[in-house]
Amino acid sequence: MSELQFVRVDMAGLAVTMEETPALYRDLGGRGLTSRVLLDEVDPTCDPLGDGNKLVIAPGLLAGTVAPCSGRLSVGAKSPLTGGIKESNAGGTVAQKLARLGIKAVIIEGKPAAGPYLLEINKRGARLVAAGEYRGMGNYALMGILRERYGPRCGFLTVGPAGEHGYALASIAVSDPEGRPSRHCGRGGMGAVLGARGIKVVVVDDSGCAGVDVADPDSFRRVSREWAQGLVKGRKILTDYGTANLVLPMNALGGLPTRNYQAGTFEQAGEISGERLQEVIIQRGGKPSHACHPGCVIRCSNVYHDHEGNYLTSSLEYETIGLLGANCGIGDLDAIARMDRFCDDFGIDTMETGVTMGLAMEAGLVPFGSAGGVCGLLQEMKNGSVLGRVLGQGAAVTGRVLGVRRVPAVKGQSLSAYDPRGLKGTGVTYATSPMGADHTAGNCLPGRTGFRPETSGGFPPHQDEGQDQLSRDLQVMTAVCDLAGLCFFVGVSRENMDVTAQLLGAIRGSSLTGEQVLDLGRQVLVTERTFNRLAGISEVHDDLPEWFRREPLPPHHLTFGVPREKLRKTLEFKEQ
Amino acid sequence: MSELQFVRVDMAGLAVTMEETPALYRDLGGRGLTSRVLLDEVDPTCDPLGDGNKLVIAPGLLAGTVAPCSGRLSVGAKSPLTGGIKESNAGGTVAQKLARLGIKAVIIEGKPAAGPYLLEINKRGARLVAAGEYRGMGNYALMGILRERYGPRCGFLTVGPAGEHGYALASIAVSDPEGRPSRHCGRGGMGAVLGARGIKVVVVDDSGCAGVDVADPDSFRRVSREWAQGLVKGRKILTDYGTANLVLPMNALGGLPTRNYQAGTFEQAGEISGERLQEVIIQRGGKPSHACHPGCVIRCSNVYHDHEGNYLTSSLEYETIGLLGANCGIGDLDAIARMDRFCDDFGIDTMETGVTMGLAMEAGLVPFGSAGGVCGLLQEMKNGSVLGRVLGQGAAVTGRVLGVRRVPAVKGQSLSAYDPRGLKGTGVTYATSPMGADHTAGNCLPGRTGFRPETSGGFPPHQDEGQDQLSRDLQVMTAVCDLAGLCFFVGVSRENMDVTAQLLGAIRGSSLTGEQVLDLGRQVLVTERTFNRLAGISEVHDDLPEWFRREPLPPHHLTFGVPREKLRKTLEFKEQ
Repeated sequence: MSELQFVRVDMAGLAVTMEETPALYRDLGGRGLTSRVLLDEVDPTCDPLGDGNKLVIAPGLLAGTVAPCSGRLSVGAKSPLTGGIKESNAGGTVAQKLARLGIKAVIIEGKPAAGPYLLEINKRGARLVAAGEYRGMGNYALMGILRERYGPRCGFLTVGPAGEHGYALASIAVSDPEGRPSRHCGRGGMGAVLGARGIKVVVVDDSGCAGVDVADPDSFRRVSREWAQGLVKGRKILTDYGTANLVLPMNALGGLPTRNYQAGTFEQAGEISGERLQEVIIQRGGKPSHACHPGCVIRCSNVYHDHEGNYLTSSLEYETIGLLGANCGIGDLDAIARMDRFCDDFGIDTMETGVTMGLAMEAGLVPFGSAGGVCGLLQEMKNGSVLGRVLGQGAAVTGRVLGVRRVPAVKGQSLSAYDPRGLKGTGVTYATSPMGADHTAGNCLPGRTGFRPETSGGFPPHQDEGQDQLSRDLQVMTAVCDLAGLCFFVGVSRENMDVTAQLLGAIRGSSLTGEQVLDLGRQVLVTERTFNRLAGISEVHDDLPEWFRREPLPPHHLTFGVPREKLRKTLEFKEQ
Repeated sequence: MSELQFVRVDMAGLAVTMEETPALYRDLGGRGLTSRVLLDEVDPTCDPLGDGNKLVIAPGLLAGTVAPCSGRLSVGAKSPLTGGIKESNAGGTVAQKLARLGIKAVIIEGKPAAGPYLLEINKRGARLVAAGEYRGMGNYALMGILRERYGPRCGFLTVGPAGEHGYALASIAVSDPEGRPSRHCGRGGMGAVLGARGIKVVVVDDSGCAGVDVADPDSFRRVSREWAQGLVKGRKILTDYGTANLVLPMNALGGLPTRNYQAGTFEQAGEISGERLQEVIIQRGGKPSHACHPGCVIRCSNVYHDHEGNYLTSSLEYETIGLLGANCGIGDLDAIARMDRFCDDFGIDTMETGVTMGLAMEAGLVPFGSAGGVCGLLQEMKNGSVLGRVLGQGAAVTGRVLGVRRVPAVKGQSLSAYDPRGLKGTGVTYATSPMGADHTAGNCLPGRTGFRPETSGGFPPHQDEGQDQLSRDLQVMTAVCDLAGLCFFVGVSRENMDVTAQLLGAIRGSSLTGEQVLDLGRQVLVTERTFNRLAGISEVHDDLPEWFRREPLPPHHLTFGVPREKLRKTLEFKEQ
């Protein structure tokens, strides 16, 4: 197995060096690696947008192999939104290319006197190039130019104008196979951290690379193939309707956030459902199913056209529909698709944005249901007006400035499109994840929502009991997916831990058990909680806003009742 | 000694009850009592402006007696600015009246369906009166009407429009002997907490009250008289020039915050000095010396007239001059006096406001030196524009929204008018006080600044060494002043701890030592740190913003170098 490398980018000195991966980090990848490097190298009390923070980019341990759905890219830094450690991962084409280049991680540190720069990574190494010409450019135009200049074989990471402005809800866009900015490391303001380091673009070119070494290729291929076959059959609902398949089941469950989490069902849910989405996409000649990276067999992404049949956006996801749609009282797919396009282009997280808009509506800035009103607010963000800069800091700051008391955020980050009173396991994840409120850290969907029956456990989602255990198990298994670079739609289950162990073992050429990979997952959480404790975020912050416990959610009159003491202990593992 | 009472005001039920003081609280007063009640009754994780917070008003243990300078009123709550425990105290006439009414504390809890209300307290008891007619009224007009309706014997607490708006920098105004809103519980947003409870006014009428019981009146009078005689002589510089006597010495020391803490000296310091202030006041027929409450023998307050000889404001303090003046690059006493008047009327902390304005200037909203620019920003706050609402949340939020990285705040509260690089002991207090950055928690002024020679210790203010010890000692002794209700201008010294012990002993009729009162002071800090720990604020937050360690302060090129480890241990007392 050839030696993988660290690319260290010193933006203060404008110097790039290639380093051998320290022995300590050889068995780490993805989130496991980003979090560990941050704990080891970054002062947890630093200003996230100041000189001391670092941004770490790492493909997962399975990246670049034939393992299905293994192309997630992890990006980590101290978050300007939460003030704690953050890992945000996305699909797209970059992880696999970095892995094939033999790159274990890219560590970007310091700040230049002026910027922005472009970081070029290819088989000859890595270098910084002045990129003033791209300043202020939206992700669509920018990726269009990059694809023309660098060719369709390259993968791109780009920071939109929001990241250049230092907005705490800024994303990093990752190019999809068509070179579009449809995938985003959305959560936690990673775009602002990269923007503050003076980087606008990372170009990754893996031309001429041999690929990833696997010690036992036969067994790796066999396990991968069997797994892929199961996924193709087992995830049909995701292939057909995308993540938007969740709109109707979540609405039925009473957990679809509606009008700033005032209700759990939306009277226009049918208008924004996965079924309706599929219908509209097919009518207009879009793609109801699309792979965000080569090797994805689930293909939950989509390509949405406007009513004239022209490309509008990709991908329209459940979270975006839930938060820019139902949560703003908007039941119009075209309007939501235009907002999604805006977010992808401007470079912002659709979730933090949707919740922030809901708060602005609750504050009376624009009425619920007004897509024009939301577009006006998005435009304020783009214009950099004071109001736009408030919104650009996300839900917690917006709620505080506008005097809204019902702010759905934990550790400074907004919730996702699952009301924690209707889906209590995910509520525990929101409360306890070191990431702040983030369903991707362990989403406790019950079987009936269709694509992850194995996570339902014995705990109906409206019941308080047992949710802490369910969330803990899912958070550990999700961390395993995140370190392997697997999309968690492969299924966050005990069984898949064994499959992951087999694959990781086949790469190394040594056997590995499911229990051992679960230990790796636990270690990720311990690392992250240690960073947060040193940053001043403790188990006291492992809670939901108090009003979720007090305010009954229509129509099922649900409140969140998992005891605080249980939340504080949910992720209490022994330090290893 | 007759039994003192708690007045408990339930704003949800609009009911007022009188309770016997629980035995546990009998020896507590002022800050000692507000902090203890908060720890015992308030969930430290509650929303400061939500239903769960309580506002506690308590006179000090010496209030209502003949002890000199013993009329400070403590107000405590969980702070909307810091998210931690807060006590803010002020002079004015209310503390003494409450004490003479036999009231140990007023505890205001819950929120009404509608408001605002006026709380009337007199010898017949306490009651709530609807006060819609006062809604939105500035403190000057309001106190004018109140004085007319209730008479000059009454003391008033009022919340200005800022507190009604929920601004985190809102103060509670306390009437001075002339019935003017010249004294403020300024720090920590106590006005927003009272405003959120639906209270606009508290009227305290002590007509017909006998006064405070003292077990050993002869010895109490003797000690008080001797002490007062010493103070009259020893605080002449405060009597002559007010707190503004500090402008020139702080400028000479290089610790006068200038242009958002970019420098420690201000080229126009002479224009805003205490000496110049005295001259202008005398020329225009104002009062260079004024007592903010009966029994004050130092009389550091003043009455400032405009150039036509009409009353403009009272009192123009060092902090206000430093932060709305030098820190904004403004060297015009009249302009600063007009801003001070605005702050008093609108009901906001001049310190948080001055630092917030400095940040807006650093962000380029208006140029440094522009008094008109500052007035425009104050007007935005009054108008409730989005920009005004940002500014109304204080320095930390303003810095974040406007993207300023040099934010002089600790635990969410702005520093005062002492640059911590030029006055390092006060820097330790900023970093470690449970109150957030607050010089009044332990101001480490050296002897040469003129009014507190006994606090200079052996540690020159530019030296890092020994400042932790100095700050700790001063924080403990200041807590003693705050629980006794003494203005700390009596002198925060070991000697005065003995005097305080004698006075407290004479009230109780049992002897008390200086060491014993120091224990009481330590206990206040332990109580407050316990509350903060439960609120999620730990020793990790006991630090200054990192840039004070990195950025040398002109002209003496000072950085703050007290090690973090020392800061974290500064207030580590054993729980008692």
